[in-house]
Amino acid sequence: MMTNISPNLAIGIDIGGTNSEYGIVNHRGEILIKGKIRTDTYNTVEPYINELYENLMPIIDDYRKVGNVLGIGVGAPNANYYKGIIEYAPNLRWNGVVPLAQLITQKFGLPCTLTNDANAAALGEMIYGAAKGFRDFIMVTLGTGMGSALVCNRQLVYGQDGYAGELGHTTIIRGGRKHWKTDILGSLESYVSATGVMLTAKEMLQQSNEYSSLREYDDKLINSRLVYECAMKGDKIAKEVYRFTGQILGEALANFVMVTSPEAIVLFGGVIKAGELFLAPAREHMEKNLLPLYKNKVKIILSELNEADAAILGASTLVWELPYVTNV
Amino acid sequence: MMTNISPNLAIGIDIGGTNSEYGIVNHRGEILIKGKIRTDTYNTVEPYINELYENLMPIIDDYRKVGNVLGIGVGAPNANYYKGIIEYAPNLRWNGVVPLAQLITQKFGLPCTLTNDANAAALGEMIYGAAKGFRDFIMVTLGTGMGSALVCNRQLVYGQDGYAGELGHTTIIRGGRKHWKTDILGSLESYVSATGVMLTAKEMLQQSNEYSSLREYDDKLINSRLVYECAMKGDKIAKEVYRFTGQILGEALANFVMVTSPEAIVLFGGVIKAGELFLAPAREHMEKNLLPLYKNKVKIILSELNEADAAILGASTLVWELPYVTNV
Repeated sequence: MMTNISPNLAIGIDIGGTNSEYGIVNHRGEILIKGKIRTDTYNTVEPYINELYENLMPIIDDYRKVGNVLGIGVGAPNANYYKGIIEYAPNLRWNGVVPLAQLITQKFGLPCTLTNDANAAALGEMIYGAAKGFRDFIMVTLGTGMGSALVCNRQLVYGQDGYAGELGHTTIIRGGRKHWKTDILGSLESYVSATGVMLTAKEMLQQSNEYSSLREYDDKLINSRLVYECAMKGDKIAKEVYRFTGQILGEALANFVMVTSPEAIVLFGGVIKAGELFLAPAREHMEKNLLPLYKNKVKIILSELNEADAAILGASTLVWELPYVTNV
Repeated sequence: MMTNISPNLAIGIDIGGTNSEYGIVNHRGEILIKGKIRTDTYNTVEPYINELYENLMPIIDDYRKVGNVLGIGVGAPNANYYKGIIEYAPNLRWNGVVPLAQLITQKFGLPCTLTNDANAAALGEMIYGAAKGFRDFIMVTLGTGMGSALVCNRQLVYGQDGYAGELGHTTIIRGGRKHWKTDILGSLESYVSATGVMLTAKEMLQQSNEYSSLREYDDKLINSRLVYECAMKGDKIAKEVYRFTGQILGEALANFVMVTSPEAIVLFGGVIKAGELFLAPAREHMEKNLLPLYKNKVKIILSELNEADAAILGASTLVWELPYVTNV
């Protein structure tokens, strides 16, 4: 007896502030084909969906010859898993509430689920990356901002409204630095994101008269990457910026570890490129602030996926959990 | 056709530092009979188990005439759900690691599961109390110490090792008050437990020369209850102690809300008897420190169960989830 074995396929889309990347993914987590369009050239969502359709639909049609395309999973900033909407995303030009899942389903004729970008990355790591096999972990993305997601008992923690896991907005230094957007004082994001690294560097330069190669640059050119480069050349202040950043992250991780008791913290994003400069103090101060019960149990590990792939893969995994898929 | 309808029954035991209370509970959460023995008169666990057996077994035998006694659920300090053990509980006189579930099963011939006391209280509230119907909530017990438990998606969060949910040991004031036991600086428990209230009162009395009725008492007599009584009589410093305690709790709750996005925080224990003195500033400072996304969504509610019942009921619910019970 011959059986027609058509592999199931899922679409993953990662919507970022500048670009949107998409891919067709099989059950093994292999991205069979990838592509991208701009996100930031559209003031409203409808022409964006049209552009996405014109680029992606021909590929979907191609792959339908060899497999079953089951649906579309999307990772996007401020996306709500429960409602299928994007709400007031500060990094997107579409204003207000965007019913993205519904718009995509209507246009493509395929079921669509979305989740926020940090959750998508956590799913990608859990199923295909550094967190493979972990039941409990915390994902932290340190880019321009800080994203984060909690996985407990192999499930993403969504909370009452889909907005759980905003670790970056918790207060780490009471009465500390005012956040440029939220006005919260001393929030974690304001210290450990790339923006935080830049602000710490500027503060440290102002507060001391010590020589630093960073002083040779115009104030506007100082960013987390330049601080890293100077630190690698031995600049004392630049090194101290990353040491301090790592310490603050470590202290915060100790708190989160005592909340969810994860096996690992998976780190991701530009800031972690500073490597041990930043990771050594993070580990040290995490351990230092833990109760003995938790010490030397929690791994700090780095993402194994490249950034674009992690988000596409993670978003695609949403498709395997679509309710109807369980009946396939 | 006649059917012999025997109700299923569960035993719940709440092991505290001083007393252990037990009860036989039916599926509706009605405690059919209660009893207690001392915990603190036994230096080792074996004679304690014997005493428990002599008191509880006759009752079990009685109830076996009318129902199926399915098993024993235990809530205890430092209890580990995964391993069925109590590990180094500072408030119990039994040293080291106590394989309690195994000892009880051997003695009683009934399956036994345990969880820590805060988790048991959370289960009690979720199934029979103030958190009935909630999918996501945080339980906080403010007694001599601070206990806490997280429920996400109607499941207790246990973490990799069963020790998740130790919110009291997270740092709320960086470089703050040194904890009397853990040496952690500025941990939440050191401010918002009854012990924390007492320490804050002593600090405030030392740091000012203002009149306070608290000054009429010997230093050793100052505790959270006395501070409450003085506050209710209008004492300014005593009121400020509870206002400050509420503020610190509120700031911490804002952090936890942004981590797990719960529908409610359920408060329990002696400190909350101070009522609005403490709850009003807690609510105010929680809201003040939340991102707009979370504001006015999270209820702070008080336990609806009396303390002893909550723990017995919560412990008894573990029995309904025993693996074999699903086959009954």
